[in-house]
Formats: sequence, C-alpha cells, structure tokens
Amino acid sequence: MNWTLDEVAKRIGGTVVGDGSVELTGVSGIREAQPGHLTFLSNPKYARYLETTRASAVIVDASCEGMAAGGPAARLVTGNAYASFARAVRLFTGEEFRPPVGAHPAAHVAPGAMLGHGVAVGPHAIVMDGARIGEGTVVHGGAYIAPGAVIGRDCVIYPNVTVKSPSVIGDRVIVHAGSVIGCDGFGFAREGGEQVKVPQVGNVVIEDDVEVGANVCIARATLGTTRVGRGTKIDNLVQIAHNVVIGEGSIIVAQVGICGSAEIGDHVVLAGQAGIAGHLTIGDGAVVGAQAGVTKSVPPGERVSGYPARRHALSKRLNACIQALPDLLRRVREVERRLAASEKEGKC
Amino acid sequence: MNWTLDEVAKRIGGTVVGDGSVELTGVSGIREAQPGHLTFLSNPKYARYLETTRASAVIVDASCEGMAAGGPAARLVTGNAYASFARAVRLFTGEEFRPPVGAHPAAHVAPGAMLGHGVAVGPHAIVMDGARIGEGTVVHGGAYIAPGAVIGRDCVIYPNVTVKSPSVIGDRVIVHAGSVIGCDGFGFAREGGEQVKVPQVGNVVIEDDVEVGANVCIARATLGTTRVGRGTKIDNLVQIAHNVVIGEGSIIVAQVGICGSAEIGDHVVLAGQAGIAGHLTIGDGAVVGAQAGVTKSVPPGERVSGYPARRHALSKRLNACIQALPDLLRRVREVERRLAASEKEGKC
Amino acid sequence: MNWTLDEVAKRIGGTVVGDGSVELTGVSGIREAQPGHLTFLSNPKYARYLETTRASAVIVDASCEGMAAGGPAARLVTGNAYASFARAVRLFTGEEFRPPVGAHPAAHVAPGAMLGHGVAVGPHAIVMDGARIGEGTVVHGGAYIAPGAVIGRDCVIYPNVTVKSPSVIGDRVIVHAGSVIGCDGFGFAREGGEQVKVPQVGNVVIEDDVEVGANVCIARATLGTTRVGRGTKIDNLVQIAHNVVIGEGSIIVAQVGICGSAEIGDHVVLAGQAGIAGHLTIGDGAVVGAQAGVTKSVPPGERVSGYPARRHALSKRLNACIQALPDLLRRVREVERRLAASEKEGKC
Repeated sequence: MNWTLDEVAKRIGGTVVGDGSVELTGVSGIREAQPGHLTFLSNPKYARYLETTRASAVIVDASCEGMAAGGPAARLVTGNAYASFARAVRLFTGEEFRPPVGAHPAAHVAPGAMLGHGVAVGPHAIVMDGARIGEGTVVHGGAYIAPGAVIGRDCVIYPNVTVKSPSVIGDRVIVHAGSVIGCDGFGFAREGGEQVKVPQVGNVVIEDDVEVGANVCIARATLGTTRVGRGTKIDNLVQIAHNVVIGEGSIIVAQVGICGSAEIGDHVVLAGQAGIAGHLTIGDGAVVGAQAGVTKSVPPGERVSGYPARRHALSKRLNACIQALPDLLRRVREVERRLAASEKEGKC
Repeated sequence: MNWTLDEVAKRIGGTVVGDGSVELTGVSGIREAQPGHLTFLSNPKYARYLETTRASAVIVDASCEGMAAGGPAARLVTGNAYASFARAVRLFTGEEFRPPVGAHPAAHVAPGAMLGHGVAVGPHAIVMDGARIGEGTVVHGGAYIAPGAVIGRDCVIYPNVTVKSPSVIGDRVIVHAGSVIGCDGFGFAREGGEQVKVPQVGNVVIEDDVEVGANVCIARATLGTTRVGRGTKIDNLVQIAHNVVIGEGSIIVAQVGICGSAEIGDHVVLAGQAGIAGHLTIGDGAVVGAQAGVTKSVPPGERVSGYPARRHALSKRLNACIQALPDLLRRVREVERRLAASEKEGKC
Repeated sequence: MNWTLDEVAKRIGGTVVGDGSVELTGVSGIREAQPGHLTFLSNPKYARYLETTRASAVIVDASCEGMAAGGPAARLVTGNAYASFARAVRLFTGEEFRPPVGAHPAAHVAPGAMLGHGVAVGPHAIVMDGARIGEGTVVHGGAYIAPGAVIGRDCVIYPNVTVKSPSVIGDRVIVHAGSVIGCDGFGFAREGGEQVKVPQVGNVVIEDDVEVGANVCIARATLGTTRVGRGTKIDNLVQIAHNVVIGEGSIIVAQVGICGSAEIGDHVVLAGQAGIAGHLTIGDGAVVGAQAGVTKSVPPGERVSGYPARRHALSKRLNACIQALPDLLRRVREVERRLAASEKEGKC
C-alpha cells in the first residue's frame, strides 16, 4: 500500500520538513533505498548518507537534524527515528501471515482444550487436553501445546515450538520456531556411580510482551518457577536453565547460556555466546560482553567482559597488557643483562 | 496425594527423627517451603536454614546431622539426602503426562512399524515403516521416528524430536523436545574449489538410561558408530559430532560442543559451553570447566579450564598473573628507571 | 550391492594396482575394515595402516603412493582419495530413505501450493498456500513450509524443519532436521524503558548446493536479504543473524554465531563455537579458529584465533607468553632484589 509522507506523519507522529505530499511505496535501508522509498537515519555516523540517498523520504532523529546539508529527500523529524521507522514499516508491508481463525481441519485440538475468541490454530498443530489459549493468539502449524499449558492473549507461537506443561505464558508473547518452553531442568543426584534423576516439577512463567527466538530452551524449575520478566527479548539458540529468574526489559543475545538459579535483573544486556554460572546475580542495567564467562555476581550498572569476566575497562587494560607481553619479556631480558653487567662492573 | 513422614520413610528409606506422623502435602526448597511441605538439606552450607524453614519435615543428609541446632521440623536422615528427595518428589507430584497407550488417531504409524506392548504414540507423531519401538515407550505428539530406527523399552521421546535411521536407542532413554538424533555428520572432501559431500552412512547408538536434553544434535557416524554410553546425561543445545564416543555416567552440560571422533571417558564432566577439538581423548573422571577450549587430550581424573584448556590449578595461577600484569608493568618500568639511575651514577 | 574393484574404478575413476577382480561388499575406515571392505587413505600420516588393514581394497591418494610398503590389499590410486571414496560410498550403501513421490495422505499440502514434478512430501509435513517446491525435492514428515516460501529442485528438507516466508532456497540444498530458515531478526528500538519490535520484513536467500545442519537458525533480514552463498556448508546449531551475507564455498562449523550484517567471504572457514561481531567483514579464504571472538574485520587469507581474535601466530605467541608469566614474575622479583642489593652497596 502507498502513503504520502504527510499520511505517514499522521499515523506515527513527527514533523515533516520538505514535500509532505511525496508518494511512498516501500521501506528500505538508507544505502539501498530507491526512489519512492521511506528510510531512516538514527545514527549521526551515517548523516552523510542523507545527501546521497535515493530515498524519497527519510525519518530523521531529532538528534541528527542539522548534522548534514540535507539532500533532496523529504524528512520526517521525530524524537526516536528508529522507533518511528519500526512503526512505519507495517504501513507498507502489511502484517505477517496468520492462519484463519479457528482450528485448521488438520490441527489436533483436544476436546478439553480451551481456545479463546479469535484463536487460530494451523495445520498439524497440537493443542492437548486442558491447554488454555487466550483470545487472538495464533498457534502455527506443527506447534505443540501440552496438556495444562496456559498461553495468554495475542501471542504468536511459531511452527514446531513445544510448550510443555505446566508453563504459563502471558499476553503478546512471541515464540519463534523450534523453541522449547518447559523442558526438564538438568538435575541429577549422584548416588554411587549412578546419576539419579531428580524429577523436575516446577514450572516456567513467561510474562507479557516477551519475545523468544528460534530453537531456544527454557527449562522448567526443579521446584518453584523459572521466570522471564515482562518485555524481555531473547534471541535464537539461548539456554535458560531451571530456576533462572530474568527481570524486565532485558536483552539476551543469541547462544547465551544461563546456568541454574542465576538471577538476571531488569534492563540487563547479555551479549552473544556469554555464559552465566549458576546461582549468580546480574544486577539491573548490567551489560555482559559477548563470549564473556561470568563466574561472580555483577553489580547493577556494571559492564563486564572476558573470561573470567572482569569490569570491562579492566578487561581492556589486561588485554592491552597481554598484547604488550612480548615487549615486556624483551625488556626484562634487557634489564637482566644490564643488571648482570653492572654487578660485574661493581665487583671489579 | 498426602503422606505422613513415616509413610515416606517406609517408601524411600531413612531414619525418622521427631514426629513421624506429621502430614505432608507437597515438596519445595528449604527457603520457600510452607507448613505441610517436605524439603531437604544436603549441603552443610545451608544447615542454618534448618532452624528457620517453615517446612514440616526435612530430609537431612547424614553428613549434615548435628550441624545445626535443628528447629521444629521433623527430620528424615538418609545417606544421600538429595537422592532420597529425588525419590520422594514423585510421591507428591505424580507422574508426567503420557498419552494413552496405543497410537492416537491423529498419529501416523506406518503399517510396517513395530510397536511393543504398552507403547503410546501422541497426535501427529510419525513412526515410519520398519521403525521398532520397545514396550512401554512413549512417543509424544509431533515426534518423528525414521524408517528402521530402533528404540528400546520405557523410553520417552518428547514432541518435535527427530530420530533418524539407523539410530539405535536403548532402554529407559529420555529425549527432550526438539532434539535430533542421527543427523548427518559434517563431512566434505574438498575438490578444486568445491566441497564434495561425503555420504554419512554410520549410525548413532544411545545406550540405556541416557537422558538427552532439548534441541541437542547427535550426528551419525561417517562410517561406524557415534556412541553415548549407559547412564550419561546430556543437557540442552549440545552438539555431538560424527564418530564421537562418550562413556558411561558422564555429564555434558548445556551448549557443549564435541568435535568429530573425540572420545570422552566414563564419569567425565564437561561444563557448559566447553568445546572439545576433534580426535582428542578425555580420560575417565576428567572435569572440563565451563567455556574451556580443549585442544589436547586430557588424562583421567584431571581438571582443566580456560582457553586453551590447561590444568585448572595452572589456569587459575595464570589468571592471577594476568590480573597482576598492570602492576608488573609498573614494576618493570620502575626497575628500568632505577637501573638507568644506578648506571648513570656508576659511570660518574 | 557388491562390486569388483574394477567396476568401482569404472564408475569413480582412478588406476587399479593389484587384483581388480576382488569382490567388495561394503565400505569402512582403514582401521575397522574387514575382508571384503573398501577403504581409503588420504592422509600420509596413516600410510602405515596400508600394511595392516584387513580391507580388500584401498583408495589411495596419489600423494600417498609409494609412502608405504603396501600390503595385501588391492589399490585404486586417484588424485583425491577422499573425494573418490565419497563417490564410492553410495555404490555400496544405496541412497537415503525418501518418501514416495507425491503428497503423503497424512501430509497437509494447501490447494494453492505448487509442487514440481517428482516432489515427495512426507506424513504430517505442511506445505502452505503459495509455497513453491521445485522438481524432485523431498519434504520429510513434520517439516513446515510457509506460505510463499520458494524451494528449488532436488532439495532435501528434513523432519521438523521450519522454512518461513519469504525465504528463497536454491537447487540441491539440504536442510537438516529442526532448523529454522527465516525466523525474525533480533531487532528492537529502545524507547523509554521499552523495547519496540522492529518488524523484520526482509528475506533469506540460500543459494544452490548449500547444506544447513540440524537446529540451525538463519534469521531473515530486517530490510533486504540475509544470504548464504553457493556451496557453503553449515554445521549444527549455528546462528546466522539478520542481514548477514556469506559467500560461496565457506565452511561454518557447529555452534558458530554470526551477528547482524556481518559479511563472510568465499571459502572462509569459521571453526566451532567462534563468534563474529556485527557489521564486520571476514575476507575470502580467511580462517577463524574454534571459540575465537572476532571483534575486528579480518583481511582475506588471514588466520585468526583467541579472544579477542588476533592473527593466529600472534595468538600462539601471546599464549606462550602467558604460560611463561609465573617465571617472568619470579624473574622480576629477583631483578628487584638484586637491584636493591646493588643500590645498597653503591650507597655504602
């Protein structure tokens, strides 16, 4: 669908600078944009592209305004260009595919499953007895919802997801394909040479507005609850062990592993492939670098990196020291030589 | 279901201290426990909670007995409190859900598939021609069992698992959701600029009492067998490459990667996100630390950590040295200054 | 099926040395081979096994010829023994199972899906409206092909794979079980304390002859295309983020993570568990070591390792320096002692 820039502004807010009547046909990145496209500029580093972009209109962050001579494209200035662009995209691309409301004839919805108003269940999806699915939620083809699992309103459960009981999922939660919510925690009691399985009888609670990537594993608690707080976003292939508690608005990047009973605060960032040892606390607003191996709790607001994870500034300092080691070795060798010479001389 | 402590003791063993007639309604952790709950104490570090827990009864490890004044809860003293608790849990929580015996009408069980007595196959599960499933095994909804795959007795195959042929799975094996047993090994012969696929025609053998986590990959051998030994437990998102051989009773924690043809002994522990290079041997009883990158074989009983993995004591030593590097640099600079001064003086 | 060595030579090429009429019944590794088996020798390191193998015939790399006394087995000398063996394997083991041509009665193929000639769709597989599947492609049971997804000729899509739209997959592509092609990129615009989802509206393009391992995630682009070039091979549990571009003939080993918008060249090797930060360029022919954490672009042909990744030779040098740190500390302490003594003496 096409829109003028004025119409876009009316829907997503912002101040039009230039020709608001320009007709827009699609969205793209500032470098790839073609005539007719709407793009955005939120990073001052790319301000120079304003002059060269072929886009017909650019959503510009107020903080970037005036940083570049401009160029021919019309502009829509907003307080947060990336967020504005996020809203604009759907005007042009339409919504994601969703299966029609109701259970597809090839779905298996058990007689005792409770589906809210407007629920859509795709082909070969499985909703077992006693599962409850809230209004407007989509369960795509091939997904499995266990007996007794509870899913809120307006969620999207993608193909081949497994939601085991007794998981409780809030509203507007997205779970991407292949993820497993509520698999057993990894708990064994060693007895003689054998590993005796400790039954995992706790649950998983995923609060409202969480997004869970593809092929993620979130284990149910041994006893009690594994919890993912409101608005937290989890990328692909992440491991969240039993009894982990994650706060609100945190960002967990791909392939992160969080060991049992760790507590992750609000607005924490765990960068890709980082590992958090068991029973630690990562304070609110902390940032853990990519591939970091966190072996001690991290205070609120602190930034750590490396293995074992240390304050990021210290990690960088130590990396620089390591880089300088060949030179240091040379200097020590030289000092030893000079010292020996001076001692010899002294002895004469 | 409710039990008195005496009844619990009769079923799982141990010596009651205090009121054995106390009625128990559930299980929980020692800090979260409510009146009516049974909990456990196996770590002397938490002995103080014995005095403050609200639980009505505590399974106490013999090694912890007498470490705390006690408190009002009745006690059940056993030689291994955690293992005893593992057994007690099922008295209160009942068994996991399993679909009814037989093939669900919405399952696809090929005419040539052989199902043992008491096998249960969930909706939209797929059991292909020539697959053999042993007595009492459960194949949950959405799982796929390939033609010719063999699964033993009393196994549990969770939703969306893929068991490819010619895998052979023993008795009492648990495979959690989304895992893939028997995908192709990653084998290519470089020829000119092209990668020629080497057909992967070996198999996977998983012995009795193994547990495989969620979204795990166990590749079939190029030729021969990829093997997971009896009683080994594998956590989520683990990669086991072609021709790997793992011994008995080992523990492979989440996101570990084991490269082709590596041999892992008995009772080995590979902690989370560790990587084992190809063709190495990890000896019986060895422990590999979290995120370790193992580039050389590890002798039996040895503990290694870090990248590249070294004996754990040495790794810790080297980490302490690295931590001290800024100070060392300062000291070398100071030595150089003093030496220059002394040389200058000497020359006068 | 059995073949004489002469017959094998006729089919895969090479020069027979010894008895070409020997009857061969199967293939195996040089150490495990039994009489009747065909094996191969491509690594001169193993040339001694030529003398002791029980195999009846060995495909020998021309470069290994004459390196060992020989032994009783007949030989087939070729320019690339491993590639020749790869071709020979299928003579003995037959092809992989594939479901019969057509849609299985228990499959769901939407009326608007377009299946080419000879396409086979297994039980409980799902091919949604508007999906296009090219001639001869196999979609195994339980796989999900989204509306509008396009898959080329002679591909194999294994069970429980999810191909989301608008993915475009070329010819002869193999996708192993549980993988997800086209899940959303991980893109959020922070606004106040909230993470606003940036709609992911780009696609994934997978070119001809690519192989994708099991439980891999390849995210669709935010805008534009996430691309995997012709002939690239991807191992299990790999994460490929939105807008990543991978060239031709590259090898991505298990559990590698590639962050958003990174560009990986042609014939690159990323070893297991390596991580590539966002927006970097990895030049053609570069090799990234296992577990490396790449934080800067890597020039063509360069080999890097460690965290942060450095040129491999430098990484090894620095590792040796770290290993020597306890000794260096001792030497500096000794220098300080001697210097103090010499200063004291000087002052007398």
